[in-house]
Amino acid sequence: MIPEATLEKISRIVGAKSLVTRPEDLVEFASDATSLAYMPDAVAFPKNSEEISEILQLANREFFPVIPRGAGSGKSGGALPVRGGLILAMDRLNRILGIDHRNFIAKVEPGVITSHLQEKVEKRGLFYPPDPASLKISTIGGNVAECAGGLRAVKYGVTRDYVLGLKVVLPTGEIIQTGVDTSKGVVGYDLTRLIVGSEGTLAVVTAATLRLIPLPATKKTMLACFENTSLAVKTVTEILLSKVVPTTMEFMDRLSVETVRDKIHFSIPKNTGALLLLEVDGDEVLTRSEALKVRETCMRCGAIHFEAASNEEGAEMLWETRRELSEALMALKPNKVSEDIVVPRTRLPDMVAFLEQLGEKYALPIPAFGHAGDGNIHVNIMFDKTNPEEVEKIDAVVKELFEEVIGMGGTISGEHGIGITKSPFIGMELSGPTLALMSRLKKAFDPNGVLNPGKIFP
Amino acid sequence: MIPEATLEKISRIVGAKSLVTRPEDLVEFASDATSLAYMPDAVAFPKNSEEISEILQLANREFFPVIPRGAGSGKSGGALPVRGGLILAMDRLNRILGIDHRNFIAKVEPGVITSHLQEKVEKRGLFYPPDPASLKISTIGGNVAECAGGLRAVKYGVTRDYVLGLKVVLPTGEIIQTGVDTSKGVVGYDLTRLIVGSEGTLAVVTAATLRLIPLPATKKTMLACFENTSLAVKTVTEILLSKVVPTTMEFMDRLSVETVRDKIHFSIPKNTGALLLLEVDGDEVLTRSEALKVRETCMRCGAIHFEAASNEEGAEMLWETRRELSEALMALKPNKVSEDIVVPRTRLPDMVAFLEQLGEKYALPIPAFGHAGDGNIHVNIMFDKTNPEEVEKIDAVVKELFEEVIGMGGTISGEHGIGITKSPFIGMELSGPTLALMSRLKKAFDPNGVLNPGKIFP
Repeated sequence: MIPEATLEKISRIVGAKSLVTRPEDLVEFASDATSLAYMPDAVAFPKNSEEISEILQLANREFFPVIPRGAGSGKSGGALPVRGGLILAMDRLNRILGIDHRNFIAKVEPGVITSHLQEKVEKRGLFYPPDPASLKISTIGGNVAECAGGLRAVKYGVTRDYVLGLKVVLPTGEIIQTGVDTSKGVVGYDLTRLIVGSEGTLAVVTAATLRLIPLPATKKTMLACFENTSLAVKTVTEILLSKVVPTTMEFMDRLSVETVRDKIHFSIPKNTGALLLLEVDGDEVLTRSEALKVRETCMRCGAIHFEAASNEEGAEMLWETRRELSEALMALKPNKVSEDIVVPRTRLPDMVAFLEQLGEKYALPIPAFGHAGDGNIHVNIMFDKTNPEEVEKIDAVVKELFEEVIGMGGTISGEHGIGITKSPFIGMELSGPTLALMSRLKKAFDPNGVLNPGKIFP
Repeated sequence: MIPEATLEKISRIVGAKSLVTRPEDLVEFASDATSLAYMPDAVAFPKNSEEISEILQLANREFFPVIPRGAGSGKSGGALPVRGGLILAMDRLNRILGIDHRNFIAKVEPGVITSHLQEKVEKRGLFYPPDPASLKISTIGGNVAECAGGLRAVKYGVTRDYVLGLKVVLPTGEIIQTGVDTSKGVVGYDLTRLIVGSEGTLAVVTAATLRLIPLPATKKTMLACFENTSLAVKTVTEILLSKVVPTTMEFMDRLSVETVRDKIHFSIPKNTGALLLLEVDGDEVLTRSEALKVRETCMRCGAIHFEAASNEEGAEMLWETRRELSEALMALKPNKVSEDIVVPRTRLPDMVAFLEQLGEKYALPIPAFGHAGDGNIHVNIMFDKTNPEEVEKIDAVVKELFEEVIGMGGTISGEHGIGITKSPFIGMELSGPTLALMSRLKKAFDPNGVLNPGKIFP
């Protein structure tokens, strides 16, 4: 618990109106997109780097945890106050500081909502590609903290690839600028990319310089059905080998397709064992020629059904399969644990076969879908939390899954981060000396361990 | 000096044949692409990570500097043994460990020459884009250490964007694997990108997993002349705003054009004040349509001359202007200091105007050329080292240049690194707290300071 006297000091820094301490007001800051909850002692709404610096200096003198929080849409518990302490709600740092359309950069505060930024830059013919599923609520600060990915990563990369520089407050209170405002820069160690994906444990981001690119003129959406995963994944590889890099190559396994079938407004062949949602974008001429190549490749690789949207409305209808999916899965079981594993793309058929066996072994449905182009799929272990027998099995399922993932040369998180949900398993992927080095880096940033403690490391 | 007894221990680790100690054999390891030279005490040629680990453990017990070295083509002194010690020549770790054309990755040892890797993957329809000017001699290890850029960075990014994971030996001897073999991965801190660009001061890279992309089917090379830099740079911006991202947008200022004019086999208008070498690549249909757009934009923006190569031979002829340039500049003065500054692209005209004034003020020719698309230009301060008056001026010129660069929101190095040539100036760009943090990171990796000491930090 943060002592009353300390709370008063915090109140003097941010102003009484910007400090929340009543339990009933704290509840909404206790949870995120996981099913976990931890109550904070207080929530502060600082308005600038200087206030954050003062808070962190105070935290180093009086030893209380400080946990930065964006929209609270994280899927690994990164913003949860596992040891109590003060939540730094970044809501008031929500300005787009500037869009420079001639130098293709945007400067934004961390509280800016991802889709708001995208709308703003797209109006000017520019493009900020990272598109986590949560983009309508998630913030740039949260995206930076987790190195958010998304559906377009196969062509455009992830958040890391668009962050040129950061303004941050170090855990000890110093305000520094990392990186550059230009597309290149190699002066000193790459603090920018070290902080991206560090899950709010190394620094509090108070502004970001983001790289923009020209907005693609057109896009074309397609859907292809296959009898099994092997054929679908072979198609994905063959499309890339044909020198077409689609914006999106979303995959759904048999169970996902079965589950969503009744929720959508068009029909999918009965014998569909795997589905691909494909999108190409760019110059109009290119888009047309790439879409033709994609169709050709799908047919050659044994698609049993292929559909190309002829307009925006048709595209929306095809995307319905993906949008309805998360909700539809809840019909299988009321609760889920969702993992975002990655395996080398060519191992996806083996992974999907393994998931089928795993589901049978534990008598739990495990639908999988996700970003086939990256080998990054979301594995949903469905269960009923009122059934203790099912709850008890989850840990074993997750452990077996991660063992298989690592055995295939993959990674246990492609875009959601470690946070607290995966920290017990991090030692399966990273060696002792690697974890020891990371702990020393954490200490080099945060000698007193005040910033977002209890995360990443077991 | 490394004591004789220590040298014997090193000899036992790598084998007597793989340790060089005779002064006449050490000379070639004393210099690099700068004009500086420092003699090492010895040069070892380890054959694997284990030997490097043993050497580093010994260095931590007996305190001698260990300096990793690739081809010695660095432009900032990163591989020079400024405090003597043992050079780790990576020549024997030169295998391509594997090219996985279905997962689009290559695994290589650090001694592989960049262009060799490129030839190998291109034969299989794949592409490794980073192309530093030194690519025919420089190694992947050196490219990773410096985060090498190149001519194609405007479209394809730099080395950092293609490194998925690294096998490294830490300065304290532990052998660890960073990153992943897949296109996504966010488990723990991003050690991979922290080590990329760390100039051989944080770890010795012994293998790299590199991301590959499909090889573009065709390319088209063009040359455009303008009366001044403003018009050329406006053209660069307008091309990007037209949604065309050329592979290359190389710039030459008036003095560069004048100098190279007599060395090339085609004519350039007398009143050329700035020249652009442009290349687009990709699908044949796209390349053709983009080349047309580029032509249109150049003409609209006031090009006084435009030429498009109709075949490979024609393209080679246009590229002659760039290839002959470095040599041709030597006609101005026998020596040069070359800086690779970056400014926001739209500030390039101001920078070029400033360079003209700077040259006049100090009575030294300062031709500039480079990567206009990135705002990254190579500024060549030409002088005669036998003329003490000219030599004396260099430091002041560099300092004034860097002040202007930083004033424009730029950076003092886009792709060459800090090493020793720019370390006296790093404090102009990075603040005290930033440098202090970087020093703490160095210490977290290398508590005894044995790996490549005396670099980056002043």
